[in-house]
Amino acid sequence: PGVPRARGCAGSREVVPTCERYAVRRLPFARLADGDVAFFERLLPGRVVTGEEEVKPFNVDWLKSVRGCSQLVLKPQTTAEVSQVLRYCHERNLAVNPQGGNTGLVGGSVPVFDEIILSTALMNQIISFEKVSGILVCQAGCVLERLNEYLEEQGFIMPLDLGAKGSCHIGGNVATNAGGLRLLRYGSLRGTVLGLEVVLADGSALDCLTSLRKDNTGYDLKQLFIGSEGTLGVITAVSILCPQKPKAVNVAFLGCQSFAKVLETFTTCRAMLGEVLSAYEFMDEKCMELVERYLKLSSPVADSPFYVLIETSGSNLTHDEEKLNNFLEQAMASGLVTDGTVATDDKKVLWSLRERITEALTHEGYVYKYDISLPVGKLYDLVTDMRARLGHSAKNVVGYGHLGDGNLHLNITAESYSHSLLDAIEPFVYEWTARCSGSISAEHGLGFKKRQFIGYSKPREAVVLMQQLKAMLDPKGILNPYKTLPSAP
Amino acid sequence: PGVPRARGCAGSREVVPTCERYAVRRLPFARLADGDVAFFERLLPGRVVTGEEEVKPFNVDWLKSVRGCSQLVLKPQTTAEVSQVLRYCHERNLAVNPQGGNTGLVGGSVPVFDEIILSTALMNQIISFEKVSGILVCQAGCVLERLNEYLEEQGFIMPLDLGAKGSCHIGGNVATNAGGLRLLRYGSLRGTVLGLEVVLADGSALDCLTSLRKDNTGYDLKQLFIGSEGTLGVITAVSILCPQKPKAVNVAFLGCQSFAKVLETFTTCRAMLGEVLSAYEFMDEKCMELVERYLKLSSPVADSPFYVLIETSGSNLTHDEEKLNNFLEQAMASGLVTDGTVATDDKKVLWSLRERITEALTHEGYVYKYDISLPVGKLYDLVTDMRARLGHSAKNVVGYGHLGDGNLHLNITAESYSHSLLDAIEPFVYEWTARCSGSISAEHGLGFKKRQFIGYSKPREAVVLMQQLKAMLDPKGILNPYKTLPSAP
Repeated sequence: PGVPRARGCAGSREVVPTCERYAVRRLPFARLADGDVAFFERLLPGRVVTGEEEVKPFNVDWLKSVRGCSQLVLKPQTTAEVSQVLRYCHERNLAVNPQGGNTGLVGGSVPVFDEIILSTALMNQIISFEKVSGILVCQAGCVLERLNEYLEEQGFIMPLDLGAKGSCHIGGNVATNAGGLRLLRYGSLRGTVLGLEVVLADGSALDCLTSLRKDNTGYDLKQLFIGSEGTLGVITAVSILCPQKPKAVNVAFLGCQSFAKVLETFTTCRAMLGEVLSAYEFMDEKCMELVERYLKLSSPVADSPFYVLIETSGSNLTHDEEKLNNFLEQAMASGLVTDGTVATDDKKVLWSLRERITEALTHEGYVYKYDISLPVGKLYDLVTDMRARLGHSAKNVVGYGHLGDGNLHLNITAESYSHSLLDAIEPFVYEWTARCSGSISAEHGLGFKKRQFIGYSKPREAVVLMQQLKAMLDPKGILNPYKTLPSAP
Repeated sequence: PGVPRARGCAGSREVVPTCERYAVRRLPFARLADGDVAFFERLLPGRVVTGEEEVKPFNVDWLKSVRGCSQLVLKPQTTAEVSQVLRYCHERNLAVNPQGGNTGLVGGSVPVFDEIILSTALMNQIISFEKVSGILVCQAGCVLERLNEYLEEQGFIMPLDLGAKGSCHIGGNVATNAGGLRLLRYGSLRGTVLGLEVVLADGSALDCLTSLRKDNTGYDLKQLFIGSEGTLGVITAVSILCPQKPKAVNVAFLGCQSFAKVLETFTTCRAMLGEVLSAYEFMDEKCMELVERYLKLSSPVADSPFYVLIETSGSNLTHDEEKLNNFLEQAMASGLVTDGTVATDDKKVLWSLRERITEALTHEGYVYKYDISLPVGKLYDLVTDMRARLGHSAKNVVGYGHLGDGNLHLNITAESYSHSLLDAIEPFVYEWTARCSGSISAEHGLGFKKRQFIGYSKPREAVVLMQQLKAMLDPKGILNPYKTLPSAP
């Protein structure tokens, strides 16, 4: 159930160019000249994409919400090639848009104007895997699902998993500090990424690709690049700590009569499942309606206002099942849960109900996506308030997400994009979040679409410091411009 | 079994001033004037320490290996006070040495010359604890063990634990990116620290003290300060994710006949104990000899060349014991382990054999300490090679550490400090480590004593970038000078 590729034939009627819709001003970068293309064709023979139709799939994000006007895609295979590309672009003052699997949700992975697209698609080699320590080293363009399959053969798994796994690249995952479905159990990439190789804006390579669990020699430079969305450097290789493949995985899918019961079920389940709990996801009945309608999936439990997916991963099937059964008995007996099912073989079927919500939503038309961190008790209030506020002006207002991480995905659908609906949603949603000391982007990043709102989650001094870091590492501002940091007022 | 406080009466005969022993040159900071002391006494009434004897305990590290010549200790209670102190020092060009519990092992926590000591000792308030999420927010000067006791009452624990817990401050733990005994299970501070409040060199406060599990709004500035040893800013408050207190904890102490068996036991135990394994520590027979001799502890298992301490932490005592017993049966049957004991009530007794090695070593005289990350298979070869190299010129060469994290503590003891012994050890130990792509400081940091050796673990470009970061955040270089980064050639 991967993310569908952006349709290559998405014409200009379908997606309005970003620079028109958002009235952005192009920064004074150089414009691509014939001599530039000739240089790149010599450097990367057969790996330079030109032509409007050929470049289009790289210009449009998969949500079809933003569209750039790049004329050139480069597909290096090695770090040395990335270095040469950036050294050239730096000298020529050409802007560059690094792109992985192009599955980002905030317009960070496609150009805004005519930035050269630097694709990691051909940087897909596994460099090493060490079975005693579980440390994988690979190029940035490896597809997450391929890596996971490779590891499973050796008794390990990737420490992250997300709906877009079939397309997303590990380099892009790291560049956006992707969270996903396993964060509850294996923690954030800031802990599991052990080393990075990065090419800086001027083309110099920074080799921090160590494979050590612990290393306190100086400042941890790799952290600068994790979550910086390609604005400080291009990640070319990743070293990552992988957990052992669990011997037993169980999935339960439950119905709850209220969000209060979803929360109470979480507390109970965390206490009773302890160290084997590996996911606690929730979705509301609207989500279920949409995956049933558009994807023809069917709910295994009776109609409920809320659904919960619980996963356990452990080393002993008998122990894990006993823990899960004890929990389910108690949850049913105390009325926390009204209906439920436990998967034996069809775990993927249950997971797809949750994982394919994003896909189902795209069938509605235009989707306004919000990815909010909140104190867990208030998580669903935002959905209720938004639904009341928008009334019939939205098609649907739905809430789902990683409850165990305090992470709500609030999605609002409409036939097509409309300024007036956007004005009704924003800045309301950000003000609401800021009042609860939440984050306006839990895991999606800021990209192009959210960068002006950073002030709702970060103080002015922090933004100033970020701008100083950007100026230090990329003084000409050629790396992924118009992303992450707000434009000057 | 905390770390003993540095003896206040350590006279100059006992510890040679650092600037003499290492021939460092004082940087051109201003010198403390009467007017400065008067200013601080007005700002922090009753919380300014002067007088040679009174300041001495803050000038000497607890290993008694380095000694500064500061004349002034300041004890702010609030972030605003830290801001005012730094704003003043920045204007006056006075150097500042931030100090927590002064338990650092690389000379990072005491001055080298006359830096003003900024102690977090009175910043010891817990700000909040949220039981649903397990998120603790507290001032930087809280003692780790106090925090853990506070959390245990509420059913939680700190995600880190180390021998110095009775003295070390959480701010210092974060500033040094402390690893310790629970890293194997709960991961590094880079994943568990959710937010920081930091005062920068010019006195401005940076409020990144969020309490969210996920927040991808811009660059993660707090990571700059984790592990930067007080050279980029002074951490004043910490927000940290705390795991639930395990319902069942078991400790096993085992004897192995070779290091190869220590490794094989680790692989077996990781597979069989899975998610409940929370520590895998090892020590050699020399370590055991020293804790027996100096601390009068006794080994619960028969004489072995190597000892292993295994801890499980889980939510179900029956399940955990079954897993542990299955593992022990297999380990004994297959001859991996020759003798062993499992603790029921006396878990602390077994742990103290491992935790008090550092303390036992100080009884030998001078200790040359190395804290190395290596591929786990080569971990003990360094000890063997060093022992052969030094012969009788050292009293003892011992190895112990966090095997599960690939982290060796190599310690060499002698009656007293000697240049010639140091020359026999260094750079040999660093060259050996670099050949194996290891880290010359796994968790202790670089501080004063290791900063010149950063090049063995980091490429030149990385060090240059670190220096740029330092210059950006602390252009006058007043924060913990002579630490972390190498002096100019």
